[in-house]
Amino acid sequence: MTIGIDALAFDIAKLHLPIKTLAAARGIDPDKLEKGLGLLKMTMPDAHQDTVVFAANALTKLITDNAIDPADIARIYVGTESGIDNSKPIGSFLVQLMEQKFGEGVLNNCDTVDFTFACIGGVDALHNCIDFVRLNPHKKAIVVTTDIAKYDLGSTGEYTQGAGAVAMLLSAYPSIIAFGNNWAVSAKGVFDFFKPYHSISKWNITGNHSNDPWFGHLESTLEIHKDQPVFDGQYSNQMYMDRTREAYFRFKEFSGRNEPLYNTWHAMLMHLPYAYQGRRMFSELFALDASQPLLNGNENPADYQIKLKEVAKSAAYLEFVKHKLQPAEAASSLIGNLYTGSIFMGLISALSQFAQQGADVAGKKLGFLAYGSGSKSKVFEGTLQNGWAASVQKLNLSQTLAESHETDFDTYLKLHKKEQKQSVLPPSREWVLDRIERDVPNLLGARYYKWVE
Amino acid sequence: MTIGIDALAFDIAKLHLPIKTLAAARGIDPDKLEKGLGLLKMTMPDAHQDTVVFAANALTKLITDNAIDPADIARIYVGTESGIDNSKPIGSFLVQLMEQKFGEGVLNNCDTVDFTFACIGGVDALHNCIDFVRLNPHKKAIVVTTDIAKYDLGSTGEYTQGAGAVAMLLSAYPSIIAFGNNWAVSAKGVFDFFKPYHSISKWNITGNHSNDPWFGHLESTLEIHKDQPVFDGQYSNQMYMDRTREAYFRFKEFSGRNEPLYNTWHAMLMHLPYAYQGRRMFSELFALDASQPLLNGNENPADYQIKLKEVAKSAAYLEFVKHKLQPAEAASSLIGNLYTGSIFMGLISALSQFAQQGADVAGKKLGFLAYGSGSKSKVFEGTLQNGWAASVQKLNLSQTLAESHETDFDTYLKLHKKEQKQSVLPPSREWVLDRIERDVPNLLGARYYKWVE
Repeated sequence: MTIGIDALAFDIAKLHLPIKTLAAARGIDPDKLEKGLGLLKMTMPDAHQDTVVFAANALTKLITDNAIDPADIARIYVGTESGIDNSKPIGSFLVQLMEQKFGEGVLNNCDTVDFTFACIGGVDALHNCIDFVRLNPHKKAIVVTTDIAKYDLGSTGEYTQGAGAVAMLLSAYPSIIAFGNNWAVSAKGVFDFFKPYHSISKWNITGNHSNDPWFGHLESTLEIHKDQPVFDGQYSNQMYMDRTREAYFRFKEFSGRNEPLYNTWHAMLMHLPYAYQGRRMFSELFALDASQPLLNGNENPADYQIKLKEVAKSAAYLEFVKHKLQPAEAASSLIGNLYTGSIFMGLISALSQFAQQGADVAGKKLGFLAYGSGSKSKVFEGTLQNGWAASVQKLNLSQTLAESHETDFDTYLKLHKKEQKQSVLPPSREWVLDRIERDVPNLLGARYYKWVE
Repeated sequence: MTIGIDALAFDIAKLHLPIKTLAAARGIDPDKLEKGLGLLKMTMPDAHQDTVVFAANALTKLITDNAIDPADIARIYVGTESGIDNSKPIGSFLVQLMEQKFGEGVLNNCDTVDFTFACIGGVDALHNCIDFVRLNPHKKAIVVTTDIAKYDLGSTGEYTQGAGAVAMLLSAYPSIIAFGNNWAVSAKGVFDFFKPYHSISKWNITGNHSNDPWFGHLESTLEIHKDQPVFDGQYSNQMYMDRTREAYFRFKEFSGRNEPLYNTWHAMLMHLPYAYQGRRMFSELFALDASQPLLNGNENPADYQIKLKEVAKSAAYLEFVKHKLQPAEAASSLIGNLYTGSIFMGLISALSQFAQQGADVAGKKLGFLAYGSGSKSKVFEGTLQNGWAASVQKLNLSQTLAESHETDFDTYLKLHKKEQKQSVLPPSREWVLDRIERDVPNLLGARYYKWVE
């Protein structure tokens, strides 16, 4: 019995800032971003959008375009690191909104929960839902990843922003890709990228130590939520590579294969915080796992880095990148980071490219190298199934991304600073955040959504 | 093959306020809280404690007391609705702290992630780990629930506060309890209890509309995190009952049993926001599922409520409560709400009582009725195994709770308002929050913990 992805859908923010515009405003050489990191556009949410909106749009498309009977959905598991509530999961909003659209009670029997582990939470949701379907092959599960990758203005993460959701239907005998049983893991608790509350002592605000109530807050310290992470880019790259390397070789051990593991994969899907992160990181594995290793790990650190740079620039590696990594990068260049959705958007990107090329890839294996800061990697693989081309063609990825709406720098700043209250693009056939309750005490902060025709 | 809980551990906040003290301060008749709701004490975290501390303490005890080799742990899955970071899971802190204590790299191969769905996230973690062990019976998984149930001063939730963690080792052929394959679900997206960010427009603070930076925050709106929920107690009771009733009868249908389902269970474990919530809610199921139903659901709403009250006061129901529900309540009365841990602490409470009574309950079935606001119920069952008594006796639940340290009302207020910076009880043989980084930009807000001998 095969278990895997039977259908896919996505919803990407429709507004973007060209990377050239950002580079000009920040005084950065655009080539460094475009050719060095593979960045062309960065998408951003409109005033009426949040992570529930993106998730609900992707899920609605998945259900509608594949004529899924909502009553057949046993699970909606969500991966996100952009939760909007510390208790109520995005999954519960999705149940509510799908019932608004498809009928009261249609998801009454559906299990839902949110997974949190930076960018790898969606892979964890997938992993657990694959196990669930393996044990209950007559049931169908859906995994939704939804995130808004927002970074501080002027920070080194600013040019990697992006926003959107991916939804996947999981079933037995899937038409797109079937996953194997081996899931290799590497974990280590570190602070490479995280989203803590930002504390401010009340006396810093009020100038006195009396701890009087401040807008109803009685605690002496205020904890402010920021969508933007605290991060150390260099250190995070190191953690990304350490975890991925460990999980990769663990997977190789499980698989019992002697040849370079990457040679057994037609292409690879990696977490892409920016389009070229994968190719910049993978050169190390390319060297270590080569039939005749280009690195053996016993070099002194300086030599190791020098040799690694040589490998990264070699014709053999550039050819490898073109075939095995580039297919997944194309969408990332036009979207930016999707956090939990990045690796799955890479899959859609690669399959869309194969379909355009008329490539016959059914039966081919794809390698997945997932990473979440904090830190964890999972490495696993899937085999493409006969229905992959038909399923991916109807997604119209290229056309959708080509229709993205360019904004100017001023609009970008207004959206970033939440000064833009009106929608930049009037919503059409999609979910919108309608209002947030500000009066009824028992509902303060409740978020209400509606479908706009 | 059986799959279930092989070992248990817990860590409960060691400080408590007697409910009598709170009742006196708030002008509430203490009988209403003690005899009406079953509340005797409410526990609260000390100045050096947060949800990572409780989780790490429970996990350390589980590993140490059961001589678990950390390298044998394939998973540490965490259920919480008191996360301290929007991206980095508590699980990643646990990996870090266990490696501090048991050796660098011992958990490098361990999968970890946080589950969020109000009070039912721990049950979701359990459910998924049970599936995982069923598919990988040679592997062991750990589920940790950790929460701080904090409510606004003077609110109707104030007397239900509590804090602590439960850790469970899951394995094949478990010594304590083995779970069945049926997990009934009921879900509906509602706002009965949630923890949204609290927005304040910057102009409300500064008095002008220029959106100047405020403590480095550039957005026009600040989003403040509060540990305390927004909730509607009455509505939440209704959701609790609606979801539980639906899941209960769905489970009954799965099980194919014709007699009252509750008669097939030796005792029941329910989510207990306060000790007597279960008994106050279950009367409806007692009536609807009786051999000769005391309610048929066709009564008009007023009659239904009148009959329900009669059932709740009947000698038959009080006898039922004494045998089937009271065992799980005892700990809750002395601890308060543990959110995700509540139903598992109910299990420890019930087993501790059975052990004290010398009851022979191996082979008996227990029913689990879990609830998470927002809203979802899961109903499932387990069969007690031969090693249950030995495992639970070494937990010393009664003694641990008897040693809890009473605080006065003023200390309670200072802890609640975060005015108490020094530990009330000096820590000993436990984890403490050592410091939070306030200077290094790439680590702002990083939380560091240490083990105190």
